[in-house]
Amino acid sequence: MSLIIVGTVAFDAIQTPFGSSGKVVGGAASYIGLSASQFVKEQHIISVIGDDFPQSFVEELESRGVQTKGLERKAGEKSFFWEGKYHMDMNSRDTLTTELNVLADFKPVVPQEAQGAAFVMLGNLDPTVQASVLDQLDQKPKLVVLDTMNFWMDIALEPLKKVIERVNVLTINDEEARQLSGEHSLVKAANKILTMGPSTLVIKKGEHGALLFNEDEVFFAPALPLEEVLDPTGAGDTFAGGFIGYLAHTGDTSFTNMKRAVVLGSAMASFACEKFGTDRLMDLTQEELDARIQRFVDLVDFDILLKD
Amino acid sequence: MSLIIVGTVAFDAIQTPFGSSGKVVGGAASYIGLSASQFVKEQHIISVIGDDFPQSFVEELESRGVQTKGLERKAGEKSFFWEGKYHMDMNSRDTLTTELNVLADFKPVVPQEAQGAAFVMLGNLDPTVQASVLDQLDQKPKLVVLDTMNFWMDIALEPLKKVIERVNVLTINDEEARQLSGEHSLVKAANKILTMGPSTLVIKKGEHGALLFNEDEVFFAPALPLEEVLDPTGAGDTFAGGFIGYLAHTGDTSFTNMKRAVVLGSAMASFACEKFGTDRLMDLTQEELDARIQRFVDLVDFDILLKD
Repeated sequence: MSLIIVGTVAFDAIQTPFGSSGKVVGGAASYIGLSASQFVKEQHIISVIGDDFPQSFVEELESRGVQTKGLERKAGEKSFFWEGKYHMDMNSRDTLTTELNVLADFKPVVPQEAQGAAFVMLGNLDPTVQASVLDQLDQKPKLVVLDTMNFWMDIALEPLKKVIERVNVLTINDEEARQLSGEHSLVKAANKILTMGPSTLVIKKGEHGALLFNEDEVFFAPALPLEEVLDPTGAGDTFAGGFIGYLAHTGDTSFTNMKRAVVLGSAMASFACEKFGTDRLMDLTQEELDARIQRFVDLVDFDILLKD
Repeated sequence: MSLIIVGTVAFDAIQTPFGSSGKVVGGAASYIGLSASQFVKEQHIISVIGDDFPQSFVEELESRGVQTKGLERKAGEKSFFWEGKYHMDMNSRDTLTTELNVLADFKPVVPQEAQGAAFVMLGNLDPTVQASVLDQLDQKPKLVVLDTMNFWMDIALEPLKKVIERVNVLTINDEEARQLSGEHSLVKAANKILTMGPSTLVIKKGEHGALLFNEDEVFFAPALPLEEVLDPTGAGDTFAGGFIGYLAHTGDTSFTNMKRAVVLGSAMASFACEKFGTDRLMDLTQEELDARIQRFVDLVDFDILLKD
C-alpha cells in the first residue's frame, strides 16, 4: 500500500570519539525513505531542500520508488543543517549547530499523486507542521505514525498533544515517554500515553532495544549487540522507516504484524549505525538484511522447560 | 546436583524515593540461596553471621533444603550491615553505611558434607576469600560461577583476575564489563573477558535485561517491564541464584540450557524487585513463577516472514 513520508531532507555534520563525517546527507525523511524503500515500492516524500542539495541523492531516492513531487527545492536558499557531537558512550550527544534555512518557513504541500495513501509517517518536525499534513489529506489513512522529540515537549507541548491525538502510533525514546507522561515507570508511562490518542506506542531504547505497547499487550525487541557503533545518527528514523515500510508492504496493522515490523525496524537501524550518514542504507543488500534478521531471531531464541 | 553457595548473609537498610525498608535481612547468599531453592533440592551455604542475626531466617533456609553447616555464627559479634539510598531512576545508588563486623576476618570453611558439589556459586566477596573456597575443594566442580563488582576491580584487581581465571562463568554488569576489559563495546568487552578464564560471560543490564556470551554465541534475555520497582537490592544475586539453581537442578551446562537459566534467573529477579528485602522470594509460589516465565516467553515471541 502507498506511503507518505514527511520530514527533513538535509545536511548533517557528525563528530564522534572515533571520527568525523564532514558534511553528509541526513535528515529524518532521508533515513525513513531509504529504510522504507527496502520494503515498500510506492512512497511519496514531502520535504524541502535548498539549491545546495545534491540532485544525485534525490535521484537515488527516485530509483528506489520514492516519488519526489512533494520535495520542494527552494532556489537561492540553503538546506537545513545540523551539526552534533557524540559523547564516549554514543548514547548522548550535544548539538553544535542548527541552521534552519529552508526549514524556517516550511509549509508542506501534499501533492495530488500522494492523496489516498493508506500509510503516513510524520517524521520529527514542528507539531503544527505535522498537523498541517493531516489537515490536507482527502481520505483518512489506515495508519498514521508520528515521531517526535523532547525539544517539542519543551517548547510546543499543547500543539504536540493535539497532533498526537490524531495518530495511531507514536514513536519516542524512553526519556521522552517519561517526560510526556510524567511517569517514571515505562509501563505506567505507556498506559498513560495510550489514553492520549495513539492505540500503539513504540518506546525506542537505543542500544537497549525497543518496546511495543498496545492496551493489552507488550513486546520487546532487543537491539543487536554491535562490535562498533560508528554513528547512531538517523538510527531512530531508520527504525521508523523499516517499521512503517513493512506495515505498508503487508497492509497488516495487527499487533502480531507490528511485532515483526519492530524487529525489521531494529534490523535496519543496526545497519544505519555502521557508517556515517546514509551510506550503509544505500549499499545494503537483501541477503545482508535476511542474515541480520536471522541474528535477531537467534538472539532471543530459547525454549523453556517448566519445573518438573 | 549439589550446589555450594558462598556469600554474605547480612542486614540491609534501604531507602528509595518511594519508601524505606528499615533493617531487613539481606546479603548475596541470602538472595542466591532463596532463589536457587526454587529449583534445586540440595545446597550448602557458606557464610558468617553475628549473634544478632535471626535464627528464624536460618531455619527458613533450612526448610528449603539449604544446609547451614557452613554458616558460622560468631558469638559476641555483629552481622555485616549495609545501608544504601536509591536515586529516582532506581538504577544508581549511594552507599550510606558499610559495617563489615563479622565479615572483616571471614575465613570460609567448606564443611565435609559439602565436598563433591558439582556446582559452586561464589557470590560477591573479596576475591581472595572467593579463591580460598576453591582451594578447599577436594574435587573439581562441573561449574563454578563467580559474581563480583567494580569495588574489587578498583582495590584488588590482580587477586580478582587470578580467581576469574579459575571459574567457568562470570556475572557482572555492563559498566563492570567495560571496566574489566577496557573496551566500551559490550561485544568487544565480552570477547576480551572470555580470554581471561571464563568460557561463559553474563552481562547484567538491570532493567535492560541480560546478555549471555560464549566464544561463538550470544543470547539476550529482556527484563520484564515492571509497573513498580520497589527495591532492586538483591536482584543481581537473585538472578545468579536462579541461574545456577536451574543449572544444578538439570545438571546440563550447555549453552542451550544456560539460555533457559538466564530467563529463569531474570524471572526470579523480577520478583525480588517487588518488595523490600527477601520477602517476595519467601512467599513466591510455583504458579506465580510459571505465569511469570510465560510472560517472558510472550514478551519476545515473534515470527518473522522474510520479504516475498
